[in-house]
This record gives sequence, C-alpha cells and structure tokens, in this order.
Amino acid sequence: MDISRLPTPCPVIDLASVQSNIAAMATIHPGRSLRPHVKAHKCSSIAAEQVRAGHLSFTCATPREILGLVAAGIGDDLLLANETVDTTRLGLLASAQEKTLITVAVDSLATINAAAQAGIKNVLIDVNVGLPRCGCAPDMAGSLADAARAKGMTVRGVMGYEGHLMMVTDRAQKQTQVHEAMALLTAAHGDVGGDIISAGGTGTYDMFKGTSVNEVQAGSYALMDTQYALLHHPFSQALWILGTVISVSPKWCVIDVGLKSLGMDHGNPTIEGFNVWFCSDEHTTIAPLDGSPMPVVGDRIRVTPAHVDPTMAMHERAYVLDGDTVVDEWAIDLRGW
Amino acid sequence: MDISRLPTPCPVIDLASVQSNIAAMATIHPGRSLRPHVKAHKCSSIAAEQVRAGHLSFTCATPREILGLVAAGIGDDLLLANETVDTTRLGLLASAQEKTLITVAVDSLATINAAAQAGIKNVLIDVNVGLPRCGCAPDMAGSLADAARAKGMTVRGVMGYEGHLMMVTDRAQKQTQVHEAMALLTAAHGDVGGDIISAGGTGTYDMFKGTSVNEVQAGSYALMDTQYALLHHPFSQALWILGTVISVSPKWCVIDVGLKSLGMDHGNPTIEGFNVWFCSDEHTTIAPLDGSPMPVVGDRIRVTPAHVDPTMAMHERAYVLDGDTVVDEWAIDLRGW
Repeated sequence: MDISRLPTPCPVIDLASVQSNIAAMATIHPGRSLRPHVKAHKCSSIAAEQVRAGHLSFTCATPREILGLVAAGIGDDLLLANETVDTTRLGLLASAQEKTLITVAVDSLATINAAAQAGIKNVLIDVNVGLPRCGCAPDMAGSLADAARAKGMTVRGVMGYEGHLMMVTDRAQKQTQVHEAMALLTAAHGDVGGDIISAGGTGTYDMFKGTSVNEVQAGSYALMDTQYALLHHPFSQALWILGTVISVSPKWCVIDVGLKSLGMDHGNPTIEGFNVWFCSDEHTTIAPLDGSPMPVVGDRIRVTPAHVDPTMAMHERAYVLDGDTVVDEWAIDLRGW
Repeated sequence: MDISRLPTPCPVIDLASVQSNIAAMATIHPGRSLRPHVKAHKCSSIAAEQVRAGHLSFTCATPREILGLVAAGIGDDLLLANETVDTTRLGLLASAQEKTLITVAVDSLATINAAAQAGIKNVLIDVNVGLPRCGCAPDMAGSLADAARAKGMTVRGVMGYEGHLMMVTDRAQKQTQVHEAMALLTAAHGDVGGDIISAGGTGTYDMFKGTSVNEVQAGSYALMDTQYALLHHPFSQALWILGTVISVSPKWCVIDVGLKSLGMDHGNPTIEGFNVWFCSDEHTTIAPLDGSPMPVVGDRIRVTPAHVDPTMAMHERAYVLDGDTVVDEWAIDLRGW
C-alpha cells in the first residue's frame, strides 16, 4: 500500500531512519549502557527494534508503559523512572515481578512506603541533580536507601535526570554543567550503593565520558523532532504526521493535522517547503514557500512535530514506511497511565 | 467514591457546573438555534446532557465524532463542519444516513465530488468569512451549491466560522467585526439557499442579534478553560485534570499531570493557590503562593487546562463529581478520526 491510501492524520515512521538512529545510538552506548526511554514512542514494536540492537533494559514513565512492555515480552529489566503512590498500579507492577525484573524510582519516605506496601522488591533512589522536579536532595539519598532496605527492598542504585541541560547549545558549557550535575549523583551513589548510576537523555547522550554514569536513559533519538534536531546529533527525523490537503485558497491551504494530532508545547510543527501559519484543533494553515506551487485538495503532506513524545501519545497506531510504501503497522500500545 | 481514590491524571467534571453551563446557553440559544460542537468534549454523555437541555442538532469536526453520536443514539441532525476527501470515512457516514440526518461541509469541487461519490445526500457550503482556514470565497458559494445539486445532493445552507474573532476582548469592536463577517455569510446564503445559516463559537455566542445566523456552533462553553474564562461569559469552569502530588522539595512540589494529559497550545495550565513553573511529559512543577502551606505527597490537586478541546481528546474517560464525590464515569468516546 502507498501512503496516499492511509487515513489521515496518522503517524508515519521511516523504517530505515528509525533503525539507523537505533543503530547509531547502540554503537555509542551498547547493550545495558543504554536504557532506552519508551515514553518517547510508547510503542512496543520500536522497543523490539531496540532489543534487536542489543538493549534489554528499558526506562518507563508510567506503570502502563511497564505493563505494556511486560505484555509484549520486551526487555528483562524495566525501570519506572518516576514516582507514584498509586497502590493499585504499584500492585499491578508487583504482580508483574514474577515475569520480569521491575524497579521503581523513589525519592521520599511516602513513595518508599507505597512501594513496600504494594510488594515492590526493587527500588532505585531518584536524586535531584538540578532540574526543579522529582528527586531527593543528594544528601538525603543515603538515608532513603537505608529506609528502603529496612522495608526489605533491594536498592539497585541511583538515577538523576539533568533535564535542565538538554537544550544547552554550547557544548563545552554543557559538558561542564553535566559533569557538575553528575558529581552530585556520584556523591549520592556513594551513600546509596547498588549497581546502577542512571542519567541522561537524547540532549546529553554524549556527555558522560569521565563520569560514573553507567547507563543513559535516552528515548527521543529513535524518532526525533524539530527541537532535538537543533542539536545536530547523528540522528535523523524518522517520524512525521501525515496529513491530507482538505482546502485550498489563493494564498494558503489547509491540512487535516492539528492540535489533536501534534504535541504543541514546543510550538508549531514544521513542513518542508511551506510556512506554517497556525494550528487549530483539526487543521494547520500553511502556505508554500516563495515560488513553490500550491498543492491541490487530496495531496499528502508530511508534518514534522516539534515534540515527539506527546505527539506519539495522541495516536493509536503508526504506519511504517519504506519510501512511500507502507510495510507495517505498529500499535502505539504503551499509551496512558 | 471520593476523588482521593481516582487514578491520576484524569479529567474530573463537576456535574452541577456542566449542567448549569448547558442550561445557561440553552436559555440564550434554545433548541435548534444552538448546534453544540462536540469537538470540545468528545463525550456522548455530555452530548446527552445537551439533548436533555433541548438541543437535537450537533456539530462535529471528524467522521468518528459523527459515527460515535450515531452509535450512542444522540441527536437527529449531525453536521460534519469540516472538509474531507477520505472516501472510506465518507462511505461510513453515508451508511449511517439511514439512521440519522447527516450533513457534510464542502468548500470545493473536490470535496463535493468526494461526498457525491460516497453517497452523501446532504451538504452545506462552508464559506470563508475572514479566518484563513477552510471555506470557499463568498462569491464562489453559489456555483458550488449548483455543482452539488447537479450531483443530486441537497444543499442545506451555509456555514462560516469567524474563528479569528473569538478572542477579541473589546465587545463593541467584536460586535462590529462579527456583523461584517456575517454580512459575507448572508450574501453567500443568498446565492446558495437552504434553511441553515450556521456560525459562531463560545467566544461569539452572544454577537448574532441582528444577523441572519440561525444556529450557533458553540462547544467549549460546556466545560470551559482558562482562555475562554478571560471573556467573562456566564459559564463557569466545569473541568479539571486531577493530579496527585508525587514529590515535594523545599521550594516546589511536583504533580503527575503533564504534557500528555493537557492541551498545551494555549500555554500552561493554572492551579488555584499555586504558581505553575513548567510542565514536562508526565509532571508539572508548582509552588504554593506566598504564605500557603506546601502540600504533602499524595495530596490531590485540580489543574485547570488552558484549552479544553485538545485536553479532553487525550483521555479515555472522565469522572463526574458532586463536590468531591464521584457520581459517574463518562467515556470520552468520540476521540480520533
């Protein structure tokens, strides 16, 4: 089937590009030195590509991402890199521990108690390394680890997400700041112990040489978006939202891709050959760049989202392409919470 | 059940507020003078409340919204107020015509031909009244109506969405501009004929006195959001995304509501009693206003989205509240395309 027959709006993924991105990252961070973050794609078929590239440990942001990977038989070491006190969902994770190794991030006595009460066996101490979000103060990590061990849980190590540094564009400055952040994580690890020192993302994946970090949690590199493209990393755009031109006026045309099919927190999408005027719920108004012809109703247009993670979360399935030929269909099966 | 037992993040809807909003609008635009737009809530249970308030005609943005209303037995006059050349989906709409009256907006020969080919019986001419989006030039409306009739279809009238005027805050200026836009629609209707002259939204619902418009397509008024609240209309906030505090630091705390549970195109959400620092995929970092106490892990927080339409589209179900008591659960069953 050709893309001209796909129902729009829908995500389309270039198979060669996603495989190339996954291979490029696996060369730099092979095997367990990468713990791919599935929140970026929420798709067990992409996680399966990451398994084929040698990764067996995965990072998740929600219990449903973990449970979806378990259901798909993907990976043997799944980390919920996020806090929860939802005892129902923690109980589901605890039940899944018979099938695979599951580890839950904790950063407080409340999250430790909730995990212990639900029967979670393995935790990891989430340490704040500068981003004002989750994670305990570095000097509290040791006492939290002690509290978790006192509850009978295994403490596998530490994680610290330096999300505030992802988009620093000066590489020397970024390197310095990442190393400063990782010094906090290393000190916390000294108090916590365990085998895991986990950090990073697509924006900092190549900044850990000389640190103690032994696994990187990158996710967006597999599909990419226009924001991460600004960093000029060796990953190429592999995802677009395919749209159809539904209306043409003398100075603009309209495609059926809008706010409900695009993550908008990083701003408007981009479209090769067009200026993007604005997005509405189910529309984007665009105009051809100077000298380019106006499309006709029915033409297909590829829209590059500004932020991949929330974009994928809006769709039920993605179509996999070889050129303009549809070769597969992947369920976006890890959606929700 | 109390809201403290709900799985978060999830939409919660105050039943008294949504019913009050629906009643207030039905007083101003009773019965068929309102054609409620379901794209704002994508929920047939809310549409059923609108039926109970006397409305039987509905506006939809996607084929799936129409088919969902048909499946739920809601309404007797459903308008797809959007263009499509997807012959598969148009065919599904054509098949549903036996069950209810379905009308499809067209603005070009291509969309007329697609509708005719699929067996659509009723169309309406979408006229551009100033928003650079869909709709034919006003002086083309008559010839398009002729073309549709030549294909054997009934032309029920015209619609024209003055979306560029929704957020004009000076009421006198807005009134003038809406009347100018509606003069274009009225002229087009003179060339087209038919019974329907449809326009408007929550931002302009009270601007049509003295125009020929005989039905208003408002939708957001039922649940509201922080952007429409700026207009000081007689509709109150009825929707929040409920979150749980998952991490507390000395100067901020983090809730489990983020980019994947909030429409972000109108900016950050607001939270009563807190400053909102920033949203991540599954988190929002917030700080109590001066003098307010810091929450504790496990506390529930109501988040008011900046844009209701894409927010509702991100969730599978909403919980219906009487105060803090959960009295019902509504599927958000009109999602997708």
